[in-house]
Amino acid sequence: MKSCGLIVEYNPFHNGHRYHIEAARAASNCDVVVAIMSGNFLQRGEPACMDKWSRAEAALQEGANLVIELPFAHAVQSADYFARGGVQLLAALGVDSLCFGTDLSSDLDYEAFGRAHLEHESAINDLYQAREVTGESYPERMTAIYRQLLPEWTLDFSSPNHILGMAYAKENAKLASPMQIFPIQRQGSNYHESELNPINFSSATAIRQAVKSGTFNDLSSAMPTSSQKLLQEAPFIDWEYFWPLLKYRLLTTTPEQLRSVYQMKEGFEYRLFEKVKQANSFQELMTLAKTKRYTWTRIQRLLTYVLLNVTENEIMQAREHPYIRVLGFDEIGRDFLKQQKGRVSIPLITNVNRKNESLLALDIKAGQVYQTAYSSLKQQDYYRAPHYN
Amino acid sequence: MKSCGLIVEYNPFHNGHRYHIEAARAASNCDVVVAIMSGNFLQRGEPACMDKWSRAEAALQEGANLVIELPFAHAVQSADYFARGGVQLLAALGVDSLCFGTDLSSDLDYEAFGRAHLEHESAINDLYQAREVTGESYPERMTAIYRQLLPEWTLDFSSPNHILGMAYAKENAKLASPMQIFPIQRQGSNYHESELNPINFSSATAIRQAVKSGTFNDLSSAMPTSSQKLLQEAPFIDWEYFWPLLKYRLLTTTPEQLRSVYQMKEGFEYRLFEKVKQANSFQELMTLAKTKRYTWTRIQRLLTYVLLNVTENEIMQAREHPYIRVLGFDEIGRDFLKQQKGRVSIPLITNVNRKNESLLALDIKAGQVYQTAYSSLKQQDYYRAPHYN
Repeated sequence: MKSCGLIVEYNPFHNGHRYHIEAARAASNCDVVVAIMSGNFLQRGEPACMDKWSRAEAALQEGANLVIELPFAHAVQSADYFARGGVQLLAALGVDSLCFGTDLSSDLDYEAFGRAHLEHESAINDLYQAREVTGESYPERMTAIYRQLLPEWTLDFSSPNHILGMAYAKENAKLASPMQIFPIQRQGSNYHESELNPINFSSATAIRQAVKSGTFNDLSSAMPTSSQKLLQEAPFIDWEYFWPLLKYRLLTTTPEQLRSVYQMKEGFEYRLFEKVKQANSFQELMTLAKTKRYTWTRIQRLLTYVLLNVTENEIMQAREHPYIRVLGFDEIGRDFLKQQKGRVSIPLITNVNRKNESLLALDIKAGQVYQTAYSSLKQQDYYRAPHYN
Repeated sequence: MKSCGLIVEYNPFHNGHRYHIEAARAASNCDVVVAIMSGNFLQRGEPACMDKWSRAEAALQEGANLVIELPFAHAVQSADYFARGGVQLLAALGVDSLCFGTDLSSDLDYEAFGRAHLEHESAINDLYQAREVTGESYPERMTAIYRQLLPEWTLDFSSPNHILGMAYAKENAKLASPMQIFPIQRQGSNYHESELNPINFSSATAIRQAVKSGTFNDLSSAMPTSSQKLLQEAPFIDWEYFWPLLKYRLLTTTPEQLRSVYQMKEGFEYRLFEKVKQANSFQELMTLAKTKRYTWTRIQRLLTYVLLNVTENEIMQAREHPYIRVLGFDEIGRDFLKQQKGRVSIPLITNVNRKNESLLALDIKAGQVYQTAYSSLKQQDYYRAPHYN
């Protein structure tokens, strides 16, 4: 079976995501579309608006054949680690190709770019370190480095989606057998665009804002009916749902103890310890904690690590012991799993139990905290069978 | 001004407490009654049913002239430390006498008992250690030791109130100028009695059960009208209010990290770590965690330390730097404070602010967590003036 992989968040699943699945199928001519999807916490350090099971269900209803969880240790990370986690899982599953959206140009030869980057990787990293003192932004620094080392590549480092695309290409080039890459032109809406787009391709950001502001009916043009229905069945989760727990945590943890949280450094623990006393909501804490050095996303990720009390050791353990956690499949996806089973060299997990719980400890912990959001939310991990569509 | 001290919890304030104040005034012939009262968490490792301000208000309305907070570091402790904290605060305030209830006999000469104990203290402690191996209960062990060392004293070590009375006497004997002791016969009800007593002296336990079971009207015979009114104004807090936070804490703390909690030892951290996964309420966790070695009260105290993430260092800091925190007074109490001010050698605190916050850090933390119980509960410490009756 010919397979094509996507690395996604589906927060929530919308028309652009359906287009992505259809375009991947058309471009790769594949039999099976495999989506590697973040779990209950997302790349930008936020809880998902719906739990991972609902989002997997939406994807399966709209054309994905198999949904695998991108573990917390890779999902709640900067673009490079997020991409590495996704690409490695696709490779472990023996997926043939990778398809992602780009909002710039789909003409860029990502495979060649990945190889060129790999060839110069240590020089790029050295220069990146050396230019630390310049105070340049990430796009400025990378542009300067490429102009110096690889002048034949003119790249734009300012778009989050394009940065992700380049990260996929770089990780893919490192594989023993790199996948074929199918970049597709994103339709209609920019990543950060916050207004609903009348031509059916609104961004997830715009959809989240429409839901929060109560103009929910407008979504019929932006989302498939199936995922609209899921949205109506459960509350729309955001950070404020976890604010009482986060506040409690920060009020009862010393700065010294906070320092054992993954990525907590440079005295930021003292800043949080002080600011939480004045904050009455998550948004207020974010606004109070924000500095020039710390972007919004970086602080959100840090607060996700605080909420879950994530340590460096937990992240390292999870990265050193990868696994494939199946969230759902249809008949085609199940057949593909059966076909690949023999050649998959890492644990393939369809049921979390006492025997494999230590492997998934961080995801289980994330699920247990996410589950407290509202009372009817089901157990996220133990003894939960994959969704069958 | 002649003063008499009481060491109390008022959980909630009832007729027996009013009798205690009246009897103390009559026995000591004092001008001012000073109550040293636990704050928001109590000796047996429970949140108070009402916050410390409401309980102080009730006491002032029913005859106490001055209410001082017994700090967390002394309040949530076994009888000996609880008594030490209370007696030391009374001594620091220059209080002349101490009055407490006993459910055995008020004929016992507690002052002489205190001196006799002090004289033999190291021998008693040595024997106590030596008999560890016998597996005797605390009452059995103490009875055997007294029979051996001080056969002239026939004491009952099985009543919680009597154990507290003896602890007061022992601590009092250690003072440079011991206070006069007025034991009074407790009326009508045993400490643990769980049925409302028709002759107006119900235990706090019986009152709490009546409130929880909804037979609230019966309380008119058990409590002064003023404290009934306070009870009706706010929810009746118990451990279940803090169960979501405690569960979250236990789910997101490793056994290694739990070990840094005060008094956590002997592998009990692993027991909690395991049992919390099965528990759906505080009561369920208690029932699951209970062992022969760990009494209900000991586990409750331990879980209070977990909830507040209390470390040994915090307890030691608080004990080494005592202070007098005023919760409320009437005119007489205020005059007494003015009179004593010059001879009080530890900080006298009527307003918590940035200058003195580090001294009261543990009480402030306890208040911040207690405050999450319901949304209309006021800030417990910062800038809160004593209640004036």
